[in-house]
Amino acid sequence: MELPAEAIESVLARWPVADLATPGADGRPHVVPVVFAHRDGDLWSPIDGKPKSGRELVRVRNLRRDPRVALLLHHYDADWRKLWWLRVEGSAEVRTLASPPDEADTRALAALREKYPQYAETPLPGAGGTLLRIRIEALRSWRASGEVVEPSGIEPPTSALRTQRSPS
Amino acid sequence: MELPAEAIESVLARWPVADLATPGADGRPHVVPVVFAHRDGDLWSPIDGKPKSGRELVRVRNLRRDPRVALLLHHYDADWRKLWWLRVEGSAEVRTLASPPDEADTRALAALREKYPQYAETPLPGAGGTLLRIRIEALRSWRASGEVVEPSGIEPPTSALRTQRSPS
Repeated sequence: MELPAEAIESVLARWPVADLATPGADGRPHVVPVVFAHRDGDLWSPIDGKPKSGRELVRVRNLRRDPRVALLLHHYDADWRKLWWLRVEGSAEVRTLASPPDEADTRALAALREKYPQYAETPLPGAGGTLLRIRIEALRSWRASGEVVEPSGIEPPTSALRTQRSPS
Repeated sequence: MELPAEAIESVLARWPVADLATPGADGRPHVVPVVFAHRDGDLWSPIDGKPKSGRELVRVRNLRRDPRVALLLHHYDADWRKLWWLRVEGSAEVRTLASPPDEADTRALAALREKYPQYAETPLPGAGGTLLRIRIEALRSWRASGEVVEPSGIEPPTSALRTQRSPS
């Protein structure tokens, strides 16, 4: 069963974490958890300011070669009737932030700051930093039962989404 | 920072869900949440008995063409100091269960039943059903801080793993 349209909107707006899969150089997929914000119809994911090695992160190198991504947002629960997932297929643009950032990037950074209170302490990328802009090309979803998902706030996933019986 | 070896063992044994990334026919990665058990050094993931369409699931079709997978096990927490992930790179064999199942498959099914009390109600694949056997080829992990992860039981992810201060 697919998620209802309004649940998809809520999940894209408020679910705190996604698994970003990118195509590896050798064809093996690479997958890593990322934070993201939904703004202007796209998903935006910041790249942490300081790579330890000085090299670009694998996800960025992969996307410079092949922009096709799959993102998985999902909820695990010991009650399997509450399981659901949402998969986004898209195309990622690797953006380098200008100084000051252009208008679209500024809106995306504001959306990230608004979604994640953690960015009051953790720095977002600044000028010269990297932001992924993922254009959504297709959405697929699944849920185990008729329960409607209602995310509320950015809390640990299991408490972030309250499930309610659908009115039917 | 990598996860300590004992935490990796615990996570493989007890973490309830993984994101399985497989290479799509067109090269775009496919990703879906799966349950799994760790037995005989491999990860085993059952394929739900009844595909609605009668066609094989995308993950199975992908793996028949290219067995290389990446599996991501990870914990999201509003407290970003508690974030961690474990990525498994491996090679998946698509196994069709004999009647009765062979010894290795029987042990894997027992491990799944032991790990997931939910299989008291949800049927596991039977004869003719499908089981993925994933040989672990590489492990990469990351954690945000020195807190040690200690999974306990199969509960929703945020309560399943208790974090403790490392003794140092």
